[in-house]
Amino acid sequence: MRVLGVDPGLTRCGFGVVEGRAGRALVELGHGVIRSAAGEDVGARLAALAAGLGLAIAKYRPEVVAVERVFSQHNVRTVMGTAQAAGVAILVATTAGLPVVLHTPSEVKAAVTGSGRADKAQVTVMVTRLLNLSVAPSPADAADALALAICHIWRGAAQARLDRALSASRGAS
Amino acid sequence: MRVLGVDPGLTRCGFGVVEGRAGRALVELGHGVIRSAAGEDVGARLAALAAGLGLAIAKYRPEVVAVERVFSQHNVRTVMGTAQAAGVAILVATTAGLPVVLHTPSEVKAAVTGSGRADKAQVTVMVTRLLNLSVAPSPADAADALALAICHIWRGAAQARLDRALSASRGAS
Repeated sequence: MRVLGVDPGLTRCGFGVVEGRAGRALVELGHGVIRSAAGEDVGARLAALAAGLGLAIAKYRPEVVAVERVFSQHNVRTVMGTAQAAGVAILVATTAGLPVVLHTPSEVKAAVTGSGRADKAQVTVMVTRLLNLSVAPSPADAADALALAICHIWRGAAQARLDRALSASRGAS
Repeated sequence: MRVLGVDPGLTRCGFGVVEGRAGRALVELGHGVIRSAAGEDVGARLAALAAGLGLAIAKYRPEVVAVERVFSQHNVRTVMGTAQAAGVAILVATTAGLPVVLHTPSEVKAAVTGSGRADKAQVTVMVTRLLNLSVAPSPADAADALALAICHIWRGAAQARLDRALSASRGAS
């Protein structure tokens, strides 16, 4: 399974592409950030984000796009831009015919570090280790996007096991 | 000036088109809502919204799109969907080559009722009156979108007056 992870943001939107399946080695295919200047108007920034994600999808041809679920506990000004960026990311993926899944920050942290309350540095360390990278992915937004992709590969496998177990138990009853 | 007002939302996104300039009668050209079912996944809902707004732009050919600025004081679950919808509306307008302006709910209420704390019913009454409509626009999301368009026509004129006064005072000094 090839997954494009997206850590949405207006100023920096991280993306990372990982291929793999549970129980096998994970392979990092690429990562980066799409940036836009705070001085530009929001329409131009969202259009730049849409174009950048479109290019990433065309280049890496993922089968699924995993986007971080945005919550509004954080800074009010920032979160609105983040939610707008998430909306655009979801739209771009859907328009490209790709399924979109959302994972919460704590699901992602728990998947790669074992703790839902891990800090950013810990996530970066584990992403670097799990993907067998020689240097840590930078900036943190790109590392978070790779963590999202890993989270989806592993959670997807867990969900598939659960679905098989459920259908087996239904068949047996 | 022909303005498309957009009251963003995932379940109901209101739109309304008004033509006019300050000091002249305002003309309502059309209004409605783009709906999507809460049961559908968010990607399909955002894609339906993008398509609906694209149709409205193609049909009414506005010169500018006024979108309600979303704040996160409200219900946390709802506001994330609303912000995603706003992001998609801004993207669609920008992609169509149209300038986007944002107005806050209190700016809109103040523009059409004289009070930034007016309720929805009062906004609908004033929109119906100002646009000389025989029936009140419905649902409230469409009325809000028309109010946004009116707000922009009037605020734009006030801003232009201010700009002229400023450049005149600069010229005189």
